[in-house]
Amino acid sequence: MTDWLEQISWNGEGLVPVISQDSATGKVLMMAWMNRESLQITVETKRAVFFSRSRQRLWRKGEESGHVQEVEDIRIDCDTDVILLKVIQHGDIACHTGRESCFYKQLQDGNQWVDVDPVIKNPDEIYNK
Amino acid sequence: MTDWLEQISWNGEGLVPVISQDSATGKVLMMAWMNRESLQITVETKRAVFFSRSRQRLWRKGEESGHVQEVEDIRIDCDTDVILLKVIQHGDIACHTGRESCFYKQLQDGNQWVDVDPVIKNPDEIYNK
Repeated sequence: MTDWLEQISWNGEGLVPVISQDSATGKVLMMAWMNRESLQITVETKRAVFFSRSRQRLWRKGEESGHVQEVEDIRIDCDTDVILLKVIQHGDIACHTGRESCFYKQLQDGNQWVDVDPVIKNPDEIYNK
Repeated sequence: MTDWLEQISWNGEGLVPVISQDSATGKVLMMAWMNRESLQITVETKRAVFFSRSRQRLWRKGEESGHVQEVEDIRIDCDTDVILLKVIQHGDIACHTGRESCFYKQLQDGNQWVDVDPVIKNPDEIYNK
């Protein structure tokens, strides 16, 4: 039964945008993309697996960093073209810059993006272990 | 000064995905798209204005329903290709179905989408006033 997969409005590239939200804090951690295969694996393993558009391959979130996202809830929106995951973020770091969330640049004074959230761990320590 | 606009990684259609999150509850309300013009107006008016891909025109959120989104914070992610708004959701309804959030369909048993959130107000009452 893959009706639930076919009910999704995949875009022209066979992808759907996916928002990850920390289930404990409510913080929006990141947005990435999934194809059918990555969503199926996500559902089966309860670990977020995305599709990397730049590398054109499956991207098992945390495969290098260990910062996996354990999936607690999967929602789709009214238009069936955006997915929302509620996750437990292992290591409390979702961003490759070593920050909790990827959304750390704030628009200030209506004319500049300013980094406002702290780096929790140096990326060199995350990726060159 | 529109450097901040040019620093955004607009997609091939000149759009960027935008997540709206309720600043009070932390609930993710919806995801839609903006072009340069809609983002500029959003920043100037502090009201969310999207770009409707289906209608190919500006979409002033709440223009018919009155359910405007008052923007308190604007973030962009590490790749500068996704925007996150923290908003005050007027009327407590973001979805055209009359629900608080557009993400009301939950994946259950790994094989079916089930509507789990209540309709707060009948859409007929919202749009045919």
